[in-house]
Amino acid sequence: MFKNLTMLTDLYQLTMINGYFKKNTHEDIAVFDVFFRKNVCEGGYTITCGIDEVVDYIKSLKFSDSDLEYLKSLDLFEDDFLKFLKDFKFTGDIYAVEDGTIMFPNEPILVVKAPLYQAQLIETAMLSIVNFMTLIATKSSRVCNAAKGDAVLEFGLRRAQGPEAGLYGAKAAVIGGCLGTSNVLAGKLFDVPVAGTHAHSWVQKFDTELEAFRAYADIYPDNCLLLIDTYNVLDSGIKNAITVFDELKAKGHKPVGVRLDSGDLTYLSREVRKKLDEAGYNDAKITASNDLDEYTITALKQEGASIDSWGVGTKLITSYDYPSLGGVYKLAAVSDVNGNLEPKIKISENPEKINNPGFKKVIRIYNSFGKAEADLIMLNDEYIDTTKPLELFDPVYTWKRKLFENYSVREMLSPLFINGEYVRTKKKVYEIRDYANRELKSMWDQYKRIKNPHVYKVDLSYKLWNLKNDMVASKKKN
Amino acid sequence: MFKNLTMLTDLYQLTMINGYFKKNTHEDIAVFDVFFRKNVCEGGYTITCGIDEVVDYIKSLKFSDSDLEYLKSLDLFEDDFLKFLKDFKFTGDIYAVEDGTIMFPNEPILVVKAPLYQAQLIETAMLSIVNFMTLIATKSSRVCNAAKGDAVLEFGLRRAQGPEAGLYGAKAAVIGGCLGTSNVLAGKLFDVPVAGTHAHSWVQKFDTELEAFRAYADIYPDNCLLLIDTYNVLDSGIKNAITVFDELKAKGHKPVGVRLDSGDLTYLSREVRKKLDEAGYNDAKITASNDLDEYTITALKQEGASIDSWGVGTKLITSYDYPSLGGVYKLAAVSDVNGNLEPKIKISENPEKINNPGFKKVIRIYNSFGKAEADLIMLNDEYIDTTKPLELFDPVYTWKRKLFENYSVREMLSPLFINGEYVRTKKKVYEIRDYANRELKSMWDQYKRIKNPHVYKVDLSYKLWNLKNDMVASKKKN
Repeated sequence: MFKNLTMLTDLYQLTMINGYFKKNTHEDIAVFDVFFRKNVCEGGYTITCGIDEVVDYIKSLKFSDSDLEYLKSLDLFEDDFLKFLKDFKFTGDIYAVEDGTIMFPNEPILVVKAPLYQAQLIETAMLSIVNFMTLIATKSSRVCNAAKGDAVLEFGLRRAQGPEAGLYGAKAAVIGGCLGTSNVLAGKLFDVPVAGTHAHSWVQKFDTELEAFRAYADIYPDNCLLLIDTYNVLDSGIKNAITVFDELKAKGHKPVGVRLDSGDLTYLSREVRKKLDEAGYNDAKITASNDLDEYTITALKQEGASIDSWGVGTKLITSYDYPSLGGVYKLAAVSDVNGNLEPKIKISENPEKINNPGFKKVIRIYNSFGKAEADLIMLNDEYIDTTKPLELFDPVYTWKRKLFENYSVREMLSPLFINGEYVRTKKKVYEIRDYANRELKSMWDQYKRIKNPHVYKVDLSYKLWNLKNDMVASKKKN
Repeated sequence: MFKNLTMLTDLYQLTMINGYFKKNTHEDIAVFDVFFRKNVCEGGYTITCGIDEVVDYIKSLKFSDSDLEYLKSLDLFEDDFLKFLKDFKFTGDIYAVEDGTIMFPNEPILVVKAPLYQAQLIETAMLSIVNFMTLIATKSSRVCNAAKGDAVLEFGLRRAQGPEAGLYGAKAAVIGGCLGTSNVLAGKLFDVPVAGTHAHSWVQKFDTELEAFRAYADIYPDNCLLLIDTYNVLDSGIKNAITVFDELKAKGHKPVGVRLDSGDLTYLSREVRKKLDEAGYNDAKITASNDLDEYTITALKQEGASIDSWGVGTKLITSYDYPSLGGVYKLAAVSDVNGNLEPKIKISENPEKINNPGFKKVIRIYNSFGKAEADLIMLNDEYIDTTKPLELFDPVYTWKRKLFENYSVREMLSPLFINGEYVRTKKKVYEIRDYANRELKSMWDQYKRIKNPHVYKVDLSYKLWNLKNDMVASKKKN
């Protein structure tokens, strides 16, 4: 679906590219950083996702004749520029994290180093992909953390922000930790487990609930999970389910369990559990759904709800309480007349909005047990000698310092495209999920807390900090 | 983009269809209603959108060989069922409102009357389309109402929930009242105006802001709108802009204006207005952006901000404070052994979740000035004799009654598909926007209030009300 989106860009990208073309500076090499300023849901971490989809997007960039005709009709561009666009091809470098990597505010997660006109064109679509998929992967991780090892299933397609959001949201949800999805196309395209039994309409279709359950059990005797809240959970649903389970058992089948989709899930699940156990179905599972998210799951668990697996819809697929990541794409450097990269900065009245200038990299520092201790944003030509102690300092409260000894480092970004060629191999979705899970395990628990997590340290190297401060000071003097 | 989404459905639709197929009831005729339970942002109305996209979706329904292979691999379905799916084609009827129609909670906006297996398959994708586009059209209408006639532009692609949400969100935003979008592909596909000038990166690329502005003015002398907040709005941005405007004027061009994208928009816009006026640019426009929505625009206008047009991004394209409409698809009737439609109901502990049974229609009652006074949900075979007075009653507080005399009625839903054939003609996007605008004009202002609007009356006919109450009472006895 992320193919042929060449025209999915903001008009100002094209007016700027045309401007650079006219000034003959369009081939200048520019460095742009993709980063976000806050973690999803103001949590303690963010799981990056969408890099694989960016690859498909970049690979298929091409203006069609009808695209160029349309652009001509806008009366903004001359023929030489449209002719130039006809041959558009991405020839630059992109460095990026792997999908499933845990990253933090202000760290570049993707860096484009490319001729200015190319780097500019791709901003908008790339942000829309990475912003959305990172949002949902992280939201899913939060929901799965709250479920503490219970199965979580993604059920949100009907409430997604359109079909594609439902489809790629399902992929991101699995990467974030969901065991599967109700979304059949996602199952097919991404090779992830699909789940689903029946809806209320199945029960309504029959004259009685018991008939409906019997018919379902007859067709799926070894896969019998019954939705028991169409009329009344305790007065009819669980009673009819147990009747049908007894019939299944008599024929040598083992029922799977029941699903609750409304009402007080704590009370109902406990009552249902009791009735299932009394009837000898200790193994039967209780699945719950109905506007769940990490906060409600946490509360239900604290109240002692007896729920084995969780179907999560609207609030996961839209990240309902935080529906946009807000990732940005900021110019960090441009080649000068000698072809050297010159750092660039954008000043703002809001100090957090001042970007980190220059072509950069991100280093993660691990202790000897493999736990991540801090990240360091550095200029690309800097190097850490891990045989020596390393002192980090807070970029705002510079008196806050920390010394690392016996540590190892990892470079977070790696080449994705070099000279326009894709230089990685895609992983399977379940491999990305396993990797995201290892990433989570490398983080201390205090960063995974759902509310008020501890803030993970992201510091700047001395060299980058000095560069930034000098540039701010000199711009302020202008 | 909404093509070939046959597999974009929940797995339970397929397990249920297989169940009906096995029980040989799959050809029974079912009636399902699409409706929502609350207006977008808990406002006073909702603008329906996405019906045209549903048409594309329905028309292209077809299982491919690889789809069927994948379904076989799930070990849930037998070969006769997969063979049956191979010939799947929608042959039913769909009744729907027109895109751009104002509708209210609990009213069917789309009714499917089709063989059960067909009606079931299309639920999920259809909901994801209509839920999203209706959400954004309505959010846009709210934002445009707040702007009170000022131009509103949709700028949200980079923050949308993926590329497709950005694209179709832009279409919905225009239908809801936006004058245009930054989204070039939306401009091309939907024939709507596109807008955009330059970003902060343009200014950063040059050694000074003045150079950047001069270069821009040189290339777009008659389309010169300058972004003045890259460094400092009042110390440099507006000064440099006026310098360049003076240079443009000397060459006989008329500058368009300036854009603000950060800071205190009320204060800055008033200061900038003053400086523009002092310099003789009374006609130059001030455009503002930066996390705007209907609430902030209302506040800025009340504070006396001097802003002529509004660029609205994240909070429109995601409907940030209300990111999912929550429209549902409920079984309302199924054919009995004689082929007659038998009404169906789903009981819930939550009275608002009990659906209206039967094959229904929605009537809007207008006074003699063409203002909408109330809606009435009726059974499909009911008829209103407009030569006689009409008494409506509240379905919950039945003593609340209202008598209409000298009124006219309009049937809100009309055929979209009959026997699987599409029976309408699509309108242009700007025609849909004009229609939505006429719809808004037919509503009293109290329903358009952004917060705490008056609740528009949606009543049930006597016949429907009686049917519903009888069915609830009889289910309760079970």
